[in-house]
Amino acid sequence: MTDISISIPGEEAKAVAAGITAQEALKELLSKKQRKQAIAVLCNGEATDLSATLQADTVLELIQADSDEGVHILRHSSAHIMAQAVKELFGQDVKVAIGPSIEDGYYYDFDRDPAFNPDDFVAIEERMAEIVKARLPFERRMMPIAEALAFFSDQGEIYKVELLKDLEEKGEESVSLYQQGDFIDLCRGPHIPDTSWLKSFKLLRVAGSYWRGDEHNPMLTRIYGTAFSDKKDLKKYLNRIEEAKKRDHRKLGKELALFTIQDEVGPGLILWQPRGAMLRKLIEDYWKDAHYKNGYELLYTPHIARQDLWKTSGHLDFYGENMYSAMEIDEVAYQLKPMNCPFHIGIYNATKHSYREFPVRWCELGTVYRYERTGALHGLMRVRGFTQDDAHIFCRPDHLEEEIFNIIDLNLQVLKTFGFADYDVYLSTRPEKYVGSDEHWDLSTKALQGAMEKKGLAYEVDPGEGVFYGPKIDIKIKDQLGRSWQCSTIQVDFNLPERFGMTYTGQDGAEHQPIMIHRALMGSLERFIGVLIEHYAGAFPLWMAPEQARILNITDAQADYCSGIYSELRQAGVRVEQDLRNEKLNYKIREAQMMKTPYMLIIGDREMEEGTVTVRKRNGDNLPPMTPQEFADLVRKECEQGTA
Amino acid sequence: MTDISISIPGEEAKAVAAGITAQEALKELLSKKQRKQAIAVLCNGEATDLSATLQADTVLELIQADSDEGVHILRHSSAHIMAQAVKELFGQDVKVAIGPSIEDGYYYDFDRDPAFNPDDFVAIEERMAEIVKARLPFERRMMPIAEALAFFSDQGEIYKVELLKDLEEKGEESVSLYQQGDFIDLCRGPHIPDTSWLKSFKLLRVAGSYWRGDEHNPMLTRIYGTAFSDKKDLKKYLNRIEEAKKRDHRKLGKELALFTIQDEVGPGLILWQPRGAMLRKLIEDYWKDAHYKNGYELLYTPHIARQDLWKTSGHLDFYGENMYSAMEIDEVAYQLKPMNCPFHIGIYNATKHSYREFPVRWCELGTVYRYERTGALHGLMRVRGFTQDDAHIFCRPDHLEEEIFNIIDLNLQVLKTFGFADYDVYLSTRPEKYVGSDEHWDLSTKALQGAMEKKGLAYEVDPGEGVFYGPKIDIKIKDQLGRSWQCSTIQVDFNLPERFGMTYTGQDGAEHQPIMIHRALMGSLERFIGVLIEHYAGAFPLWMAPEQARILNITDAQADYCSGIYSELRQAGVRVEQDLRNEKLNYKIREAQMMKTPYMLIIGDREMEEGTVTVRKRNGDNLPPMTPQEFADLVRKECEQGTA
Repeated sequence: MTDISISIPGEEAKAVAAGITAQEALKELLSKKQRKQAIAVLCNGEATDLSATLQADTVLELIQADSDEGVHILRHSSAHIMAQAVKELFGQDVKVAIGPSIEDGYYYDFDRDPAFNPDDFVAIEERMAEIVKARLPFERRMMPIAEALAFFSDQGEIYKVELLKDLEEKGEESVSLYQQGDFIDLCRGPHIPDTSWLKSFKLLRVAGSYWRGDEHNPMLTRIYGTAFSDKKDLKKYLNRIEEAKKRDHRKLGKELALFTIQDEVGPGLILWQPRGAMLRKLIEDYWKDAHYKNGYELLYTPHIARQDLWKTSGHLDFYGENMYSAMEIDEVAYQLKPMNCPFHIGIYNATKHSYREFPVRWCELGTVYRYERTGALHGLMRVRGFTQDDAHIFCRPDHLEEEIFNIIDLNLQVLKTFGFADYDVYLSTRPEKYVGSDEHWDLSTKALQGAMEKKGLAYEVDPGEGVFYGPKIDIKIKDQLGRSWQCSTIQVDFNLPERFGMTYTGQDGAEHQPIMIHRALMGSLERFIGVLIEHYAGAFPLWMAPEQARILNITDAQADYCSGIYSELRQAGVRVEQDLRNEKLNYKIREAQMMKTPYMLIIGDREMEEGTVTVRKRNGDNLPPMTPQEFADLVRKECEQGTA
Repeated sequence: MTDISISIPGEEAKAVAAGITAQEALKELLSKKQRKQAIAVLCNGEATDLSATLQADTVLELIQADSDEGVHILRHSSAHIMAQAVKELFGQDVKVAIGPSIEDGYYYDFDRDPAFNPDDFVAIEERMAEIVKARLPFERRMMPIAEALAFFSDQGEIYKVELLKDLEEKGEESVSLYQQGDFIDLCRGPHIPDTSWLKSFKLLRVAGSYWRGDEHNPMLTRIYGTAFSDKKDLKKYLNRIEEAKKRDHRKLGKELALFTIQDEVGPGLILWQPRGAMLRKLIEDYWKDAHYKNGYELLYTPHIARQDLWKTSGHLDFYGENMYSAMEIDEVAYQLKPMNCPFHIGIYNATKHSYREFPVRWCELGTVYRYERTGALHGLMRVRGFTQDDAHIFCRPDHLEEEIFNIIDLNLQVLKTFGFADYDVYLSTRPEKYVGSDEHWDLSTKALQGAMEKKGLAYEVDPGEGVFYGPKIDIKIKDQLGRSWQCSTIQVDFNLPERFGMTYTGQDGAEHQPIMIHRALMGSLERFIGVLIEHYAGAFPLWMAPEQARILNITDAQADYCSGIYSELRQAGVRVEQDLRNEKLNYKIREAQMMKTPYMLIIGDREMEEGTVTVRKRNGDNLPPMTPQEFADLVRKECEQGTA
């Protein structure tokens, strides 16, 4: 038996006999305390079972149970354990499909008639607990593909058979199987050493799911679950789900009368109700103002264009499946716009340009239409018609870094105004297939990096993940519940200026091609408002609250006084409403609180005598009585601070 | 020979012998002075040649040469005289088609190869003058249709033959012809007594025109001309045309860089350039603010909807030919919206309504798409995509008059803000075919009348010209050149609430159908801006000027000082630009004046020393030097006055 060298990165290597398991190797290299939480191991960078045997020189790295990778493995194993429990409980009635770990949990797809529903969860969870208690090892073995096919065929596991046939066609000769107890699954692994590692898990919900996501295939039942290395983390997560349900923008959108989606109009098309439209208008006004102050000029462009324009732009070739089918006008084909860029370029090309006028910064709240599958639609988050807060900057190469810096600066300022100070930033660099010269790619990538560094912005690099037309920066914001949302994007484009033959006259008198930057801060206004609703649980900051204050009288005796205050405050620019119904005060307060109205102005005889209002905040706190004018000042100041 | 009775309305009748001409009859009834300007006559209400013979009792009314009807006859005769001149000059090469009088003039369509062009006008006008001088009488005669067919066939006048065949098919037995000199035309008349009556005429322009407006027919050349009873009126009119050319919004739109229309995008689709977009934004902001202050709530709705929605609304049946063809999404047909109403109704129907919350006033700047023939498109005035300043009011019958009053009030206020204080108002009442109960029609018509009377508004009634779904008020504004533009409309609708099953709970606890009012003040934002451009010749009032002021330095020495003022004024909310190029001051002033910039801030050494700016208005007047802060105040006050 030969010797192999094993080591921990940065530490001295050790010679051991080949065939040692990873677990034994770790014992050689680390203290007991150090390897206590080892759920699996990276062998030369590849995630591996602890039971794997080492046949060559190996650098080992621990995968701790509470690391991202560790939790991922735990969840994957939990999916297997759930499938085992289901098979044991429901036996031959059930066929298993696939069961991966996903963000925040895992799922497994089952074929069963009748479909599973949450009432089945208790039994499944109990059986899972028994399996965990039995401390069954996860055993890996390799099997020739023909043998695996025969095995799963015998079991009637038609979905596994289909997967195996695909692997066979791809030329695979053998596959790995994992077994715990009597349950055997086709799987790459790795997994936890044994079932006892699964201490905190929970089944969450069921959903219908087509086999392989294709609606022509059978509908399976997907059971979602989650698992954590720690009971506290599970509890925190379950609380977060509960909180997220309460904050669901579809639920709040209805309760707060913000928007409606109707089958008669079409799925994925938003109708903004008055309160939602006011919210949107306030956001748009803030956005336009911020852009004006930052040297942008506004544009408006149409929602349709000749198909030929989309041919020139390349959208029809590269983006056609997201575009709606053509309509004919006088025998010419037109299509709805999925993007605004070609129109902005059209405006650019309508006049001659000189290097002197650069940078040109043009922005538009442009409503675009893109195809999404009905199943993918989700409230405001995933729609078929949405409004991009789009902008295009045309500039010279020597402007690039400063312009990117300015964009990032405005971007972070806008996000902060909306209450997002926590984000992850990604730089995507040149992919394998690309247009534009290497020189331009280098220049632009350096400009993006330089701007971020100047701004003191930490970022991750996604090598090769840039779009084919240029490098980009993506910003993912984190909301109140810690969830990430991809919103802002800044992209350099070498493609469209070429396709549309854009030029400017340089200082040298010759014609040059401008550099084009695409950018969106909120991304989609609809989606961003969906995020805002959930972020604030509908309790919007004062400056964007559709209704800032509501006047509540205690008895009819104050009705006229209230109406006077209503007019006075409206005149002073406060978005005030009044509820003068002959109802109990508490009832009216409850209703205003349900609508998350920031301020209630309560008016009884005393207030009327003193010419004041009693101000109640939506959290229940009371402010000292004040005059309507003082209240209007308070509102104005709070709004100014909100958008400062 | 029998006696007949002739009279002037309100005067005593006279008995005369039948067969007397209208001209002779007038001699019997009126003094020479009274009938001096008689160009034709109304016989029992029908326009008739003075040479016509009277065979029955007749009430006669003069048609004066300078009356609307008189000028109309004059122009019609001028068309005949132009055709005579053309035939005499170009003989057998020319076939004549039709030649009516139109608003502000007349035209005649000719078939000739090569087509006429303005270079031919001098010769034609000279020959017309000779014909006028020859004092040729216009002679009317009746001819059996078969005879007329033979006559025009012989002449090779194929268009007249086609018209005669149509008349024959309709069962006409004879037709009237008019002859002056050797020129004979098929015509109903009446005409001027002889060619000498045509004293002031002018040929204006040529245009291509398909025979009978059908693009499958031959293209003819249309020569436009005009005629007036008075040389002064002609001169005034020609000046107005000249002025209108200078103000043409397409020309100014390009010069002032307001908007562009591009074949690549599609005809009739507007791309707003930065300055035009700023103008549009300022108008939209003013509009939204005025509506908020008047108790309206804003909505936003999509640009497409399922075809079924347009079936329910009736648009597909009654308006289908103005709608763009369907596109498919997941095998469901969708269409672009030609109107916003069904979406507003969708939002209404999304929730329950009570009589207490009425009136509901919802407004939207809704961009709609409607088919227009390419030939009909005209700059911003006639487009394929435009933004309606739409609103729908839902109310109870007892609200109607007050709501209409409020709408008119807001309407006139908005028009006044845009500089239109002169308008004509029309009330259109129940047509033959209609929906809704007579009771509702009466109620609504009375409410419209009541509101106008309360407002002290003079109006004309167009009996039977209401839409099938309800009565309406139309307001036509008059621009600086006295031209009329139909913009505002207020329509009561009994149809859509029924079609969409809209209800509200009344005070009686039962469900009732609300009354719906459609209204638009500007009509189409695009068209209204077109009118504004021509009304103001591009020199917009300060509050809506995209660029309010431009800083001009005299030498480079003041450049830094200028930049400081630029920042200060921007901070103070002034839409200021700076032109610091190393060019002569006069050159820079001329450019700012070309752009109709309201204020130029001229800065030399003295201003820099004194910390002031010298303010030059676009009309060339200078204001005394002032500090930048004083200038900002001046701008703010002028803007406030503008939108007060």
